[in-house]
Amino acid sequence: GFEVDAGWMDHVRLSSVRVNDGGSASFVSPDGLVLTNHHVAFNAIQKLSSEDEDLIASGFYAPTLADERRCTDLELNVLDSIEDVTARVQGAVADDADEAAARRQRSAEIARITQEETERTGLRCDVVTLYRGGAYALYRYRKYTDVRLVFAPEAQAAFFGGDPDNFTFPRYALDMTLLRVYEDGAPLSTPHHLRWSADGVDAGDLVFVSGNPGSTGRLNTVAQLEYLRDHHYPRILRHLGRRRAVLSAYAALGAEQERRAKRDLFSIDNSIKALGGYLDSLRDPAAMERKRAEEQELRRRVAADAELAAAVGDPWAAIARAQGTAAEIGARAYYASLRGSRLFDLARRIVRLTAEVEKPNDERLPGYRESQLESLKLSLFSPAPVYADLEEVAVAGALEELAQELGRDDPFVAAALGDGQPAAVAAELVAGTRLADPDVRRALVEGGRAAVEASDDPMVRLARDVDGIARELERRDRDEIDSVESKGGEAIARARFAVHGSSVYPDATFTLRLSYGVVQGYEAAGWNIPFKTTFHGLFERAAAFDHEPPYHLADRWRSRASDLALDTPFDFVCTADIIGGNSGSPVIDRRGELVGLIFDGNIQSLGNRFVFDDSVARAVAVDARGMLAALRDVYGADRLVAELQGRGD
Amino acid sequence: GFEVDAGWMDHVRLSSVRVNDGGSASFVSPDGLVLTNHHVAFNAIQKLSSEDEDLIASGFYAPTLADERRCTDLELNVLDSIEDVTARVQGAVADDADEAAARRQRSAEIARITQEETERTGLRCDVVTLYRGGAYALYRYRKYTDVRLVFAPEAQAAFFGGDPDNFTFPRYALDMTLLRVYEDGAPLSTPHHLRWSADGVDAGDLVFVSGNPGSTGRLNTVAQLEYLRDHHYPRILRHLGRRRAVLSAYAALGAEQERRAKRDLFSIDNSIKALGGYLDSLRDPAAMERKRAEEQELRRRVAADAELAAAVGDPWAAIARAQGTAAEIGARAYYASLRGSRLFDLARRIVRLTAEVEKPNDERLPGYRESQLESLKLSLFSPAPVYADLEEVAVAGALEELAQELGRDDPFVAAALGDGQPAAVAAELVAGTRLADPDVRRALVEGGRAAVEASDDPMVRLARDVDGIARELERRDRDEIDSVESKGGEAIARARFAVHGSSVYPDATFTLRLSYGVVQGYEAAGWNIPFKTTFHGLFERAAAFDHEPPYHLADRWRSRASDLALDTPFDFVCTADIIGGNSGSPVIDRRGELVGLIFDGNIQSLGNRFVFDDSVARAVAVDARGMLAALRDVYGADRLVAELQGRGD
Repeated sequence: GFEVDAGWMDHVRLSSVRVNDGGSASFVSPDGLVLTNHHVAFNAIQKLSSEDEDLIASGFYAPTLADERRCTDLELNVLDSIEDVTARVQGAVADDADEAAARRQRSAEIARITQEETERTGLRCDVVTLYRGGAYALYRYRKYTDVRLVFAPEAQAAFFGGDPDNFTFPRYALDMTLLRVYEDGAPLSTPHHLRWSADGVDAGDLVFVSGNPGSTGRLNTVAQLEYLRDHHYPRILRHLGRRRAVLSAYAALGAEQERRAKRDLFSIDNSIKALGGYLDSLRDPAAMERKRAEEQELRRRVAADAELAAAVGDPWAAIARAQGTAAEIGARAYYASLRGSRLFDLARRIVRLTAEVEKPNDERLPGYRESQLESLKLSLFSPAPVYADLEEVAVAGALEELAQELGRDDPFVAAALGDGQPAAVAAELVAGTRLADPDVRRALVEGGRAAVEASDDPMVRLARDVDGIARELERRDRDEIDSVESKGGEAIARARFAVHGSSVYPDATFTLRLSYGVVQGYEAAGWNIPFKTTFHGLFERAAAFDHEPPYHLADRWRSRASDLALDTPFDFVCTADIIGGNSGSPVIDRRGELVGLIFDGNIQSLGNRFVFDDSVARAVAVDARGMLAALRDVYGADRLVAELQGRGD
Repeated sequence: GFEVDAGWMDHVRLSSVRVNDGGSASFVSPDGLVLTNHHVAFNAIQKLSSEDEDLIASGFYAPTLADERRCTDLELNVLDSIEDVTARVQGAVADDADEAAARRQRSAEIARITQEETERTGLRCDVVTLYRGGAYALYRYRKYTDVRLVFAPEAQAAFFGGDPDNFTFPRYALDMTLLRVYEDGAPLSTPHHLRWSADGVDAGDLVFVSGNPGSTGRLNTVAQLEYLRDHHYPRILRHLGRRRAVLSAYAALGAEQERRAKRDLFSIDNSIKALGGYLDSLRDPAAMERKRAEEQELRRRVAADAELAAAVGDPWAAIARAQGTAAEIGARAYYASLRGSRLFDLARRIVRLTAEVEKPNDERLPGYRESQLESLKLSLFSPAPVYADLEEVAVAGALEELAQELGRDDPFVAAALGDGQPAAVAAELVAGTRLADPDVRRALVEGGRAAVEASDDPMVRLARDVDGIARELERRDRDEIDSVESKGGEAIARARFAVHGSSVYPDATFTLRLSYGVVQGYEAAGWNIPFKTTFHGLFERAAAFDHEPPYHLADRWRSRASDLALDTPFDFVCTADIIGGNSGSPVIDRRGELVGLIFDGNIQSLGNRFVFDDSVARAVAVDARGMLAALRDVYGADRLVAELQGRGD
């Protein structure tokens, strides 16, 4: 019973912000103030931290504008406009092109469009593939790189309950951070921003979530789901388990090591829980059976219509064959890297960047096109610290894993490890490389391919030696798997449209989506779960666990308890359809006001990756009233409270 | 690592109290003060209530001894001694007796033992069947019938969260009541009582639970479990669903009606949840498969040992045949009553009592032996009110259900309903009967069989008319089902002992058991559940549901919140093995001090009826510290606080 009008939509779009390295956000004042999750800003906050000043542990509040601290390499985007470029991309494919050629031709056309548009508008331009290639859209973004940290709570308040409570509800987390966008050294003027609701939400309220969901797999075929279930997720989970063990051992060495490893451990725990949830949902025989029945019904109806059958062909069989190829090369493609090493990742991107820029724009690898170079360089030249000891254990762990997973005879392993011992090789690589220094990286990039080829930096040399192997595996992955899935997916999308007669949501692509839902509790495992929590619950959970980590209260919260109205709403849930990338999304009411901040989904929502079901799946948000009360009564951030309430000076 | 010595055991036994109509309790002061659950004392409290003074809603506190109110018909028992009488009971069976004769002979011997012992000791004496007839034990109880209400919280505090939170944890319920036993008009001296712990429990603590678990089914055969799964539980659940509908409609008529129906609705909701849990556990194919494998293994090992096989025979087949009989007569036996009518129940017991007392003691029906008459009369002559309008809907509902379940041609239905309409017949029965008056009931019992046969009271007449039908169904149930199960169970117990070489716990029989466990949280449905809650959580849950029933706070709690130390432990869980009848059991630490009060099990514990598993099954208790803080800070019950702390005057 609510009509979304164009003005409302434009306002929400222009108030929405994308965090380029994964996540969502929104403008919440006319002066460029941005609200996102603490866990979305975690990397940025950690990069501003040091051994002496751990902003992750202590939190941060800038009492004046002058105290706001510039992030080392954070890029924010605001969606300016979208244009359908399907006809142009598909028109670039020659009639007689085979699959690989068609893919190259589409890819070249996409590069041309991106390049032209970037030059024409000065905006960040991306062409996004929708419906597995059924449609192509040009997204133009305003891009901001002067982003400053304004407020962050202690990690303990932001991530109260830690990994055990992650993906659960009831929750008691203040997973928020405030940033500010600057332009030409001054706060950006943002007339389009979300007003901070004073009333908040109530059970039954209709709400909207504006954000950039990363990826979903709802249009996958059964063969694809089976591959994910039997190969892909188990492989990643095995890898994450190993990395977790390596990092935990490192973190146990001392407080500073723990601080350095914290972000990666956090992210690994999060992934293990999320991927475990996806895997569980795929291992549910009933869910898979429904998918299978749905697919069989679609195939049956296609077969029954001769014209449609001729147009669609048998993409299911082609995709199933591609899964065979995936089973063959998947492990090698996945392990054609030193997973977990920041230095190797930098080396590899420098090697590729210097090689790719010599090619015509439209023949380059994805990620290395002209329009993408500025973002890439922001990341490559970031002054964020690289810790040698952490790198050494990460590289040793990666080499050890490579040898175990692929065997020493594998060409990539042979090139990386030879007949050496992982620990010794890692020590040599890390001691010998100078890539921790951003100036060294800059010099290499500026020196171009010649500089890289002349370099005797051992990490650069390794990245150079293995690049051919990795490129060939990636090429096969693109041409023999992705391409087939993309083309097949397009045919299936067409069949689905012909049969079911109405449009289906495209899978998520880390672009702006507006989803909607209702604020609503649920029942799970016999437990009646309310739609919200209050500050009371934070103190309950801390007391119930005797303040043992991860249930200890940050000191400020313990000492300020008596100043708080304990029945202030803290977190809440709604039925909106979200997925990774929606983190930091504003929750918006009918009036377009900000009532909450998405930071998680419950464990039951993980299955939504493949089949959406809102009976018990819920998105979890911080309540706008809870954020305001915390800023005022716990953090004394009066300046920000005034700004959020529209009383800024 | 804890040795229970005889002195500790005797002290705990003599401090433990059985509530005769189902439940457990303990002495907690030297002056006869008894602690049990509010839901165990609910009937007694309701019988002291009236339209003008609803002690269920308001709670009750006697500021002085003189204010303590005598309950209408509550009987408490304290176990004095136990004696093994297996040889005497089994020795009474003639060598050539068939099953039915053996049963009668055992039954007669049990009646003789009970009668002799009651006369000899003046105590309440019961012979209890253990291991399905593998053993018989004589229990001698001290019996107390002058029991007074001392303190009860509001139902809303005792049963906070209502049915939705029943069988769950975390919980925030003050499910306690204090009673006092009097003898000769003065408080009973109870040198054996449990000291109230000042320290309480912590995670990992070893604790003991002393109480009277009602019944378990862990020695059941697969055929018995299948009967429960396919017939017994579904039948009861269907009946409860119907009664619930009838009572809800009545409760909706007004506040007083709601008050009158409350206890029955509470008890029905509780049963629906518990039986649903049992049924779910039986419907779990994996659990049933384990039971089946276990049984097959036992049968295989019996068959492999010729001597054992000869001694054991094939009790499994006999029990399976008995389930066939159960399937045949089960519905008629279950419905040979007007379920839910208090007046019919009174009439039936009067008809039977007056008939049975004319027989020799050892030939009477269970429940009507000399040793049991005093308890029976306490209940029959109770002055507790009977509400005519509630009775009318209950009788009409029961008649309606009878007609639907058995059909009008069934002899019982024909006798009860004829060709009348249920509502009309119910109106006549209730309007015509005078059994609501305890003096009328007393006169009938005193007049004996002649008075009953001469009575033209319509409810007495009905009870008289159908008694023959009911007795015959009950006889078949005893002789063709119970007897076979009992004898077969005994053989299986012997086989189990021979094969597994060590003793197995007997199934529960509403007699005193000491179980033990550890105070421990658990993980369920991805949720990390602490071992305890605190008062913070009560306020959280009320606030999270916006104080909507059943999550509203009692007024006293709202107004006294600021006086409470909110981090006081409130409820906690432990792994002790409990089951219905354990309600009100004290939780005792190594020192023999009272640290908690059992009031529930979590939903995962319901499957323990058939297979014990303590990975996630938990008993739920009120914390001794929470009870004391509530008495002091919410209820101002200083007199009781002093008495519980051993500072009484």
